[in-house]
Amino acid sequence: MGFVGAVMTHLAPGECTIELPYREELSQHHGYFHGGVIGMLADNAAGFAGYTLMPDAASVLTVEYKINLLAPAAGERMIAEGSVVRAGRNLVITRAEVFVARGDERIHCATMQQTLMTMHPA
Amino acid sequence: MGFVGAVMTHLAPGECTIELPYREELSQHHGYFHGGVIGMLADNAAGFAGYTLMPDAASVLTVEYKINLLAPAAGERMIAEGSVVRAGRNLVITRAEVFVARGDERIHCATMQQTLMTMHPA
Amino acid sequence: MGFVGAVMTHLAPGECTIELPYREELSQHHGYFHGGVIGMLADNAAGFAGYTLMPDAASVLTVEYKINLLAPAAGERMIAEGSVVRAGRNLVITRAEVFVARGDERIHCATMQQTLMTMHPA
Amino acid sequence: MGFVGAVMTHLAPGECTIELPYREELSQHHGYFHGGVIGMLADNAAGFAGYTLMPDAASVLTVEYKINLLAPAAGERMIAEGSVVRAGRNLVITRAEVFVARGDERIHCATMQQTLMTMHPA
Repeated sequence: MGFVGAVMTHLAPGECTIELPYREELSQHHGYFHGGVIGMLADNAAGFAGYTLMPDAASVLTVEYKINLLAPAAGERMIAEGSVVRAGRNLVITRAEVFVARGDERIHCATMQQTLMTMHPA
Repeated sequence: MGFVGAVMTHLAPGECTIELPYREELSQHHGYFHGGVIGMLADNAAGFAGYTLMPDAASVLTVEYKINLLAPAAGERMIAEGSVVRAGRNLVITRAEVFVARGDERIHCATMQQTLMTMHPA
Repeated sequence: MGFVGAVMTHLAPGECTIELPYREELSQHHGYFHGGVIGMLADNAAGFAGYTLMPDAASVLTVEYKINLLAPAAGERMIAEGSVVRAGRNLVITRAEVFVARGDERIHCATMQQTLMTMHPA
Repeated sequence: MGFVGAVMTHLAPGECTIELPYREELSQHHGYFHGGVIGMLADNAAGFAGYTLMPDAASVLTVEYKINLLAPAAGERMIAEGSVVRAGRNLVITRAEVFVARGDERIHCATMQQTLMTMHPA
């Protein structure tokens, strides 16, 4: 996560929020946050949300995710809120909602559904 | 694309390949390419593949994609091959297969299915 | 919808609930609702939820959906709750949560994310 | 599968084809195969394709799938071809392509990407 300057602003059982201030190198050609950055932030927020419910010593693996881009991500800051839909022993299903803050507005710019796998220690 | 050092190595009607040499700042904690980078490369390769079949003056928008991560992306170079499944007037459905090259091996590390929208000029 | 005996029990702007009583011919080999039935119910509930926000005379087309099966769908009745995430002029993004009722319990058995297209009349 | 009259016409390691003749009760309001039937057929073809690579005594569970509907499924017969993308010890990633046969034509009407889980015996 370090390379993009993202900051975890909330972490609780089954929940994680990650925020990312706008920087020019994160943008696509229109001056918005790049779609790939949105996907990465969503993947991370939901992945950490799931990880909070896994046993100590386990690690987390993203099996797959599906993301819909809802609106152009034009703003000063991106906020990805991850949450757990269902935590099983091996698989954890999560979701992330991604918003972009522009002045006083908060625009819903992506929604993601994800499958994580708990990697139990040997 | 510039910020990650990716290079387009193939472009033909309905097809696009993008390659990305490994760099430390693209990695996650295990020293592999980061999942977000894989998603971005797949999104771009499939997006450009679709764009080749759109009318001049149109632009392309990613509506959504779904990606399965198949194997750890550990290698010197990542290769994303995008191709068009079906090109309609407004929607173009695409796919991308992502590989990582490690010595003589080529490991299939992700598969993606994507929906693009053609933005016709006003 | 007629062939499976489903009933719409709620319809409001951006929302639709469809319920389906268990019948043996809807089951898979373990005596649960079949996965394909779950997908169909979710697709319909979310599709109608989206349709409520489309202009008169428009029709609705499912572009794609992604569904996670969360738990065995063993129960007397299946309930699919569709809702709209974002309604654009051409594309409407929706979600459905599917539950199965077993005695007093209500088990969350599937979650779906969907893209619809508004078909404007010619 | 019995309730819809589907027939398995091909089964080999990592591959499965299922065909379904048109019947009125499988149709939606336009007289085409219903979207839910397409999803179910795709889910089954890919699920059996994956199952062929699992150990004896294991059973198969659909974790999730994502399907794009590409064209109206109007025809006399639907054909779903499932294949394995990658078979791991616990997770098997598959794909299905769904076609509809109309006279001499074969129309590509859906493409699906799926995650299966191998349920190892206790």
